[in-house]
Amino acid sequence: MKAYRDLSPSPRTIMTPGPVEVDPRVLRAMSFPILGQFDPEFTALMNETMGMLRQLFMTGNEWAFPVDGTSRSGIEAVLASLIEPGDKVLVPIYGRFGHLLTEIAKRCGAEVVTLEKEWGFVFDIEEIVSAIKQHRPKLVAIVHGETSTGRMQPLEGIGQVCREVDALFVVDAVATIGGVEVATDRLLIDAVIGGTQKCLSVPAGMAPITYNKRAESKLQGRKKIERGLMLDGGEDDPLLRPIQSNYLDLSQLQDYWSPDRLNHHTEATSMLYALREGLRLVLEEGLEARFARHRANEVALIAGVEAMGLRLYGDPACKMPVVTCIEIPEGIDGESVRSMLLDHFGIEIASSFGPLKGKIWRIGTMGYSCSKRNVLLTLGALEAVLLRHGHKLDAGLGLQAAMDAYGMNAAVHS
Amino acid sequence: MKAYRDLSPSPRTIMTPGPVEVDPRVLRAMSFPILGQFDPEFTALMNETMGMLRQLFMTGNEWAFPVDGTSRSGIEAVLASLIEPGDKVLVPIYGRFGHLLTEIAKRCGAEVVTLEKEWGFVFDIEEIVSAIKQHRPKLVAIVHGETSTGRMQPLEGIGQVCREVDALFVVDAVATIGGVEVATDRLLIDAVIGGTQKCLSVPAGMAPITYNKRAESKLQGRKKIERGLMLDGGEDDPLLRPIQSNYLDLSQLQDYWSPDRLNHHTEATSMLYALREGLRLVLEEGLEARFARHRANEVALIAGVEAMGLRLYGDPACKMPVVTCIEIPEGIDGESVRSMLLDHFGIEIASSFGPLKGKIWRIGTMGYSCSKRNVLLTLGALEAVLLRHGHKLDAGLGLQAAMDAYGMNAAVHS
Repeated sequence: MKAYRDLSPSPRTIMTPGPVEVDPRVLRAMSFPILGQFDPEFTALMNETMGMLRQLFMTGNEWAFPVDGTSRSGIEAVLASLIEPGDKVLVPIYGRFGHLLTEIAKRCGAEVVTLEKEWGFVFDIEEIVSAIKQHRPKLVAIVHGETSTGRMQPLEGIGQVCREVDALFVVDAVATIGGVEVATDRLLIDAVIGGTQKCLSVPAGMAPITYNKRAESKLQGRKKIERGLMLDGGEDDPLLRPIQSNYLDLSQLQDYWSPDRLNHHTEATSMLYALREGLRLVLEEGLEARFARHRANEVALIAGVEAMGLRLYGDPACKMPVVTCIEIPEGIDGESVRSMLLDHFGIEIASSFGPLKGKIWRIGTMGYSCSKRNVLLTLGALEAVLLRHGHKLDAGLGLQAAMDAYGMNAAVHS
Repeated sequence: MKAYRDLSPSPRTIMTPGPVEVDPRVLRAMSFPILGQFDPEFTALMNETMGMLRQLFMTGNEWAFPVDGTSRSGIEAVLASLIEPGDKVLVPIYGRFGHLLTEIAKRCGAEVVTLEKEWGFVFDIEEIVSAIKQHRPKLVAIVHGETSTGRMQPLEGIGQVCREVDALFVVDAVATIGGVEVATDRLLIDAVIGGTQKCLSVPAGMAPITYNKRAESKLQGRKKIERGLMLDGGEDDPLLRPIQSNYLDLSQLQDYWSPDRLNHHTEATSMLYALREGLRLVLEEGLEARFARHRANEVALIAGVEAMGLRLYGDPACKMPVVTCIEIPEGIDGESVRSMLLDHFGIEIASSFGPLKGKIWRIGTMGYSCSKRNVLLTLGALEAVLLRHGHKLDAGLGLQAAMDAYGMNAAVHS
């Protein structure tokens, strides 16, 4: 019989756009013994998590809870619960994850209208606004931060127009939540999906979402209760067009997260412990301070990369603060560089997808991975690896520029 | 600002039919730092997990991997991937989770034919076989162990008939896997769903599944590749009836778990660590020894419960070895008993659903919770709590009977 060895993962500095390193406090939280799903001690932890999620999403919404799956389960829960077959849905696409929204919306039976922007750029608000006015969709879905291209779409003004045409406004903030402001209420966003494994520094496996009364009234109109939970056996309403997923049915998930605690799935205890601890860390740091930390490390990383003579990819006006995309220099094998970084320095950076495959590297500065130490170690390692690949650059400049950005000076011992 | 305190869950003896206590080795595995999802060290752990799942499912299937969600996400992944709208699906129902299979199949657009059995009993194989021959469904889905009623359905002979009529045979083994034999290949089951939080003693949040070539050929015929991953932008096949979920699309999950590692979700790292460790524990104990341990503790629990004068619920011929259902005695408030057990003894037992709500208690003996210590502590506490509720019983008999069943004798010191 094959022997499976003790788990013993190598130490890693994870500088990808997710998953990133997990705060040791979050790792420790997952090692606590579990509680039963309806143990009052556990449901109290669920309620606390909802309270903290409201602060994270900057919302007064009643509903803010995690879906038990990775980020795209949250996206699909929102879209499957809000889209009825035949609904017109508008998706402005400016990278891979816009395509994902489109693909999920189509599988929900939507008639999807897309706008497409060349990768590396984002939309002018006016382009989105006029498309909404022209197509009058039932729902507009857009990505806030596109990790595939490292761009961030401004969202100001879209929510107002959605209300004018009675459309729901859904934002995929998987890659920005916890690292960049996601002002759910101020921006009039009806439903937001966040990610755990990026700026929250919690492992993948949960998708925090929030939605308001406008979204709730749509999904409540499609509600169904499981036959096996009814006392009388019940009967289906033949006119109902139920949500096509049971697992991702927000009307059922909402009942599970409500004081009624109507049985649905078995809440993922250890992941809930992890999310709760990750949210405590966010609130202890403070949202503003956390966003400032992400910006400061971005500035230093950019300074270092440019001082090394490397070129940033994409329109700088819409650069995502937590992802920095670098053009792979002519003649350099991007995958060989990545392998040398991982295998010998224990540092992971990312490649990209589709049309950008082999053309750019992506460096994430997210959550617990977003630290001065990690930025400095990564710049030093990248320089050495590029030199070892025969790339010409002035050694030393990258780190010195980053150290300037951080305002580092040698200690003076009098 | 509200203060959220350090996580500090109270110690619990969890004797429900799931979630149950998690082995400390599994808890420790979750506290290890994470690896990136395409880090070769991590994909090697994914492959090892697949290898161990094949042993758990007693199968030579190529595909055996976890879906990143709780158990019902695995059920929905299998049904949504294998059922096309209009397909006739047969579901023999003998408890709550048969209703769940029905409800999910309907949401997949199936024309569902059900057989219903009074709760507390299971079907004669001949009833199922003749229904298959009569209705000639495209798919037959059945629950192996119904935790709602504590019954286990024999499965011998169903697989053969499914092949005769060219139906796929799907088994929900969420509550039995790891505690009772689930002989996937011998029983000719085409797809099986297991659960983590029951007899595997891993937290909820993953759903291990396996399926064979017959199932694979059905789902491969419905395959779709995400636009954002294609180099050329691609075009949809207009004749394709794609799987209605993206998140739970097994054709995409399979590519992610294949050597191609085609990007889909971000694998839930810490849960994968947990599942891998849980499977190592199962294989170290050995399947046969593990099943025997579950039977031995069941025998002692039953002996104790009956010696206390309590009556078991349901047909004993089809009792599920890992769940013991007890009729709540006349005049006793079942919820008050459960609360006293939880609040003062730190022991959790379960109530039930639908028609059995308030009528039975359910005691699980699953995985790490399935131990002599836990059975003895639970019997002692239950006796004391029943006495405190004014129930008449002969004190002491329950534990003595269980100790007899375990063959416990006082040590003789010469």
